[in-house]
Amino acid sequence: QRCTHLRDIVFRAIGEDWIFLALLGVLMALLSFTMDYIIEKCQEAKLWLYEEVAFSVGLQYLAWTFYSIIFILFATGFTHLVAPQAVGSGIPEMKTILRGVVLKEFLTFKTLLSKIVGLCSSLGSTLPIGKEGPFVHIASIVATLLGKLTSFRGIYENESRRSEMLAAACAVGVAGTFAAPIGGVLFSIEVTATYFAVRNYWRGFFAAVCGALVFRLLALWFKNEDTITALFRTSLRTDFPFDALELLAYAFIGVVCGFGGALFILLHRKIILFTRKQKRMTIFLQKNRFIYPGLVALVIASLTFPPGLGQFFAGNLTSRQAINELFSNITWTTGQADNLAEEEIISHWKHPDTNIYVNLVIFIVMNFWFGAICNTLPIPAGVFVPVFTVGAAFGRLVGEGMAAWFPEGIPSGNVIRKIVPGGYAVVGAASLSGSVTRTISTSVIVFELTGQISHVLPAVVAVLIANAIANQLQPSFYDSIIKLKR
Amino acid sequence: QRCTHLRDIVFRAIGEDWIFLALLGVLMALLSFTMDYIIEKCQEAKLWLYEEVAFSVGLQYLAWTFYSIIFILFATGFTHLVAPQAVGSGIPEMKTILRGVVLKEFLTFKTLLSKIVGLCSSLGSTLPIGKEGPFVHIASIVATLLGKLTSFRGIYENESRRSEMLAAACAVGVAGTFAAPIGGVLFSIEVTATYFAVRNYWRGFFAAVCGALVFRLLALWFKNEDTITALFRTSLRTDFPFDALELLAYAFIGVVCGFGGALFILLHRKIILFTRKQKRMTIFLQKNRFIYPGLVALVIASLTFPPGLGQFFAGNLTSRQAINELFSNITWTTGQADNLAEEEIISHWKHPDTNIYVNLVIFIVMNFWFGAICNTLPIPAGVFVPVFTVGAAFGRLVGEGMAAWFPEGIPSGNVIRKIVPGGYAVVGAASLSGSVTRTISTSVIVFELTGQISHVLPAVVAVLIANAIANQLQPSFYDSIIKLKR
Repeated sequence: QRCTHLRDIVFRAIGEDWIFLALLGVLMALLSFTMDYIIEKCQEAKLWLYEEVAFSVGLQYLAWTFYSIIFILFATGFTHLVAPQAVGSGIPEMKTILRGVVLKEFLTFKTLLSKIVGLCSSLGSTLPIGKEGPFVHIASIVATLLGKLTSFRGIYENESRRSEMLAAACAVGVAGTFAAPIGGVLFSIEVTATYFAVRNYWRGFFAAVCGALVFRLLALWFKNEDTITALFRTSLRTDFPFDALELLAYAFIGVVCGFGGALFILLHRKIILFTRKQKRMTIFLQKNRFIYPGLVALVIASLTFPPGLGQFFAGNLTSRQAINELFSNITWTTGQADNLAEEEIISHWKHPDTNIYVNLVIFIVMNFWFGAICNTLPIPAGVFVPVFTVGAAFGRLVGEGMAAWFPEGIPSGNVIRKIVPGGYAVVGAASLSGSVTRTISTSVIVFELTGQISHVLPAVVAVLIANAIANQLQPSFYDSIIKLKR
Repeated sequence: QRCTHLRDIVFRAIGEDWIFLALLGVLMALLSFTMDYIIEKCQEAKLWLYEEVAFSVGLQYLAWTFYSIIFILFATGFTHLVAPQAVGSGIPEMKTILRGVVLKEFLTFKTLLSKIVGLCSSLGSTLPIGKEGPFVHIASIVATLLGKLTSFRGIYENESRRSEMLAAACAVGVAGTFAAPIGGVLFSIEVTATYFAVRNYWRGFFAAVCGALVFRLLALWFKNEDTITALFRTSLRTDFPFDALELLAYAFIGVVCGFGGALFILLHRKIILFTRKQKRMTIFLQKNRFIYPGLVALVIASLTFPPGLGQFFAGNLTSRQAINELFSNITWTTGQADNLAEEEIISHWKHPDTNIYVNLVIFIVMNFWFGAICNTLPIPAGVFVPVFTVGAAFGRLVGEGMAAWFPEGIPSGNVIRKIVPGGYAVVGAASLSGSVTRTISTSVIVFELTGQISHVLPAVVAVLIANAIANQLQPSFYDSIIKLKR
């Protein structure tokens, strides 16, 4: 009883809410870190298996495809059996909930379990699937469950406080995915709210910072990283990041990404509407619910198979590795590489029969429809990372083109400095993910992700252009899903 | 008439609002750039005059003090005669207006003129006075006047659209001061709103980016700058910005800045209440309204006089120069300097009779009360830059202390890397300005200002701590002013 008394004093001094938020942030960081670890191991296991059977291409193909199929089928089956509410991103549903609609069984422990296991499994398949949407959902469930604990009863019972905490949880979810507290908070506000209270923004920020701090400290202690760094740390040249004239090329990226984002949303909707229209097929697929995911996994895995078509578009890289390489500070087309690490990066994107441009175009086209189709599967899946990767590849393509066009750089005054294609990749990633999710905070997320802010102006300009164009053509990806579910 | 028709078509295609916002951003950038130029020339003129009469210390003293006094008195007289509404920061008033209160004569052309001329004059005096609050006010007036133009009548006549545009104008004002669009928008939301529409945030962002883009392009073309860069560009070490243990030192900065911010607000209020309490003095000062500003200018100019006390705390530096030097990537205490530029920086902060720590402490104490008292003068004056400078100095003090305590750096694993005092200065600046204005977006502003985001995590942690502590002790600086004006 003395213990309860002590707890009451502490709670009153600091404020129940803040303890709740800190706890939420820390819990999500732990969860995020553990899941990242499991997912990474699953992905590594696939490559390991693939290398193990190197003596036979046939076996390699079987290993490569079946590994993905099994993981996807497990995710499909598990989410279906435990809680089908865990299917999809979760952001559209959270948007609906924060508007005051009650979705049944959406924030229960069963759904949490289903989402966590399903997400680990679907990401472990190495298919291009995102995790930021599911993480928003997971964080919201964790917040709800935490609110049911005796100490936080007050939060759970008060309607308006509960929705405040849910808003904060969404912020923690995004921030936890990328360890990007500022961008995460803004992103969650943009995708879930139309009006928001400044005090909610402070709360979300606080929880997100607690989460990001723990997340990075965990990385420091367990992954033997040198220090607390950004997730996709870049080392782009900062003394002269870009010439004013290059802004035109950046604006061009924005324009294309605007159309591209709208096309992505359209494609995704068309796929869903197409499967719905075929009545007999729909019934057949619903009865045999493993056929569609299995087929999709088979097709995607076959196409990325490294000795097959995969050799032309870095099929053996996970999204994370691909993003890291696309953001690298070397010009691929000139083929200059100072060390082994750089040579390895270029080797992934070069092929004797084609050139880097062709490979990048294949990468963009392939991952574009991979991303759209993976989001129609009945598994927990997000959209952010896939489009982020495609955007980065497109940016890199433009950047490499610029570097080839101006091999000496653009003269300004008496100095001539070379073009940094990595900067274009960063801007492209922000633009496409911004136009698909219809947010401008992606421009903040990329800086937190890369740890460099030198390209801030091109990025915000391109993101704004992309958003403006996409807005004329299509609703946001999440709004499109909300409409489809009606 | 064909012209009007054409205009109508363009307006309908792009949307009147967006043209309005873009125009507002560009206009504010032009204004901001021109004013920066004038202010810089005024400040340079003071130093030139001071150097010209180097043959006599007495003349130097007269030149140094009278220059400041004349500028301050001119600002006092001008604002009093043209429009006394221009006195002070403007943010508290904008907060009141955005809540729906009508302040008379606050958004007229006369006030604009009074604020612009008054601000140029008060900043030209080289006293520690900020410009971000006045800029918010100026942007709001420009938006209001722009709304009265025939083409934008629709905006001016619609109450809710007008307030939307005013909110965007506040964002442009902050963003224009620092060419920091993202942080500027967030800062303006935090200081003026309690509830906020996401669409307003997009609008503010758009206008701010237009402004920042033009602002930086102007700098590129007219100031012969190499390229588009940040305002206070730092070159801190980024490969290993800080050790996890240093987070404790950063948290300490946050704690002290929290108390410091509260103390600043208290001091400012006490000064105002003190002058009000003395009835006879108040009447005397109101009749002779030049005495108080003149006295303050005399005292501050005398104290900063370089051959006098000024030699101990870099009295001959403007806030801008001081911030640049405090953020520099060299450790002052070790006295290592690789080139002449670095030697010059250290020479400003070193004195044979004292040491760097003492000088920094004097700098902090002096500028602390300078900042508080300057904000009580009847001239256009902001608070952000003064407290930002003090915070930077405090951060530098802690950083230098850490560097002296761990001259070899803190060992982590098998690598030992030295401490970066410049990073501490950045965090200190964000913390103190955050706790005074009670915002967390200062942590974003510093990254846009410095062009480096490597210290994002320590900065947000310190800013959150500073805000939490200051919040327990005092209202925000702007709320304190609102209370005083009631």
